[in-house]
Amino acid sequence: MAFIQKGSKSNRDIVYGINAVAAALETVPDTILSCWMVRGYEESGRLTALAAALERLGVKIQITQRHYLDEKTGQGAHQGVVIEVKATPPCDDADLEAFLDDHASDQQLLLVILDGVTDPRNLGAVMRSACAAGADGVIVPKDRAANLTPAARKVASGAADLLPLYAVTNLSRVIEGLRERFVRVVGLDGSAGADLFDETLTGPLALVLGAEDSGMRRLTREKCDQLVRIDMSEDMESLNVSVAAAVALFEARRQRRSTLA
Amino acid sequence: MAFIQKGSKSNRDIVYGINAVAAALETVPDTILSCWMVRGYEESGRLTALAAALERLGVKIQITQRHYLDEKTGQGAHQGVVIEVKATPPCDDADLEAFLDDHASDQQLLLVILDGVTDPRNLGAVMRSACAAGADGVIVPKDRAANLTPAARKVASGAADLLPLYAVTNLSRVIEGLRERFVRVVGLDGSAGADLFDETLTGPLALVLGAEDSGMRRLTREKCDQLVRIDMSEDMESLNVSVAAAVALFEARRQRRSTLA
Repeated sequence: MAFIQKGSKSNRDIVYGINAVAAALETVPDTILSCWMVRGYEESGRLTALAAALERLGVKIQITQRHYLDEKTGQGAHQGVVIEVKATPPCDDADLEAFLDDHASDQQLLLVILDGVTDPRNLGAVMRSACAAGADGVIVPKDRAANLTPAARKVASGAADLLPLYAVTNLSRVIEGLRERFVRVVGLDGSAGADLFDETLTGPLALVLGAEDSGMRRLTREKCDQLVRIDMSEDMESLNVSVAAAVALFEARRQRRSTLA
Repeated sequence: MAFIQKGSKSNRDIVYGINAVAAALETVPDTILSCWMVRGYEESGRLTALAAALERLGVKIQITQRHYLDEKTGQGAHQGVVIEVKATPPCDDADLEAFLDDHASDQQLLLVILDGVTDPRNLGAVMRSACAAGADGVIVPKDRAANLTPAARKVASGAADLLPLYAVTNLSRVIEGLRERFVRVVGLDGSAGADLFDETLTGPLALVLGAEDSGMRRLTREKCDQLVRIDMSEDMESLNVSVAAAVALFEARRQRRSTLA
């Protein structure tokens, strides 16, 4: 299946920034097709090291002007290095089914479901937090979600290559399927009565988060086993979605520590 | 004291985006000097409501083209509304001293210290997380920290007007002063042996975070009572600084819940 990113005419992605390129070298070296570095990159030890590693892979370093990299990344914080990689297609419904066939009863199973998060940088930030918390994957509805754009991959700091992103056809059906497999589905909702920190988050778990402004769609909300809120100061209405995800994911990780070893 | 933001020639700030402007209206209406809205703003219910509230304050709505707002905000996500406000100077050493004279023995005291966070958006994101967690203020070294730029204020979603930001002359001296007042100073450090979730975070507390790449400066690290790490998957090296701050702050909030009422 060749997945073509919206707004893109090819199945190539660009990745930029020192950490993101280093992560791609570490995790998906085979996908790297080409590299551009800013003229004078040899003055930076980290860029020089990246160039050497890329050349060992047989990737030619193309020297260019900074404004060309600015343009290529849409004024992104490229730090003088841009690579082109074979686009990694997100996983689909069948991949998720296959994963769940093997892992749905894993007591450490931890998934994140995003409903209506359309900002690629928020998707990237959630992937970074989820990967750090030891989650097994992120699930989004394929027709109304952010894509793993270069900006998303940059914010994800390598997590985009480490953590599966499942783009599914029907999110409510996926939630039903998870519950049939006895995965507990807990939605974060600012107006919920229950407090996240009062809940038991051990055992197979999927955490659902919605868009910052409008939250989850009604149908998604209704499918959850339970809704919880992150109790916060009355001065603030909400947290950034990647921050809310991290608070909930690390609370799950905290509760699971005794069984992690 | 008139605080002039670096890169600015006036003591005026701009604030943009619907939520940020609504927060300024709610918390610091007296500081609003002028307002620009995109032509056709009446089609948006939220912009129309903001315009009405601003006009009730006596602020004239200046209608303009979108590209003028793009330029005014440096291509920021202004959503069709920009206001100009009197710049709020950050608090200084004397303000912090005065605050601590009254509150250092408050058992709920919770402060965040940022050492070397130079990206304004990270400062804004930390302020939002800190405000949501019920922290009492954020402390930064005045000569090597991010400023509350318009981009920082946007990311802070109103927290910049709610939470004091203390810009201090000498961070190590401030940490010493906190410890003399029996405020426990806990630094987050990825290489620390102790696990955040094993620590008692009740009582007067200051959490210290460093820059994402280089962490805290050596001197700052050495002044802490204790260093802890956020235990995470070995796949990821670090969390975004505002996410790390939120995980630690909400763990403190969780532990303090029994005494919050």
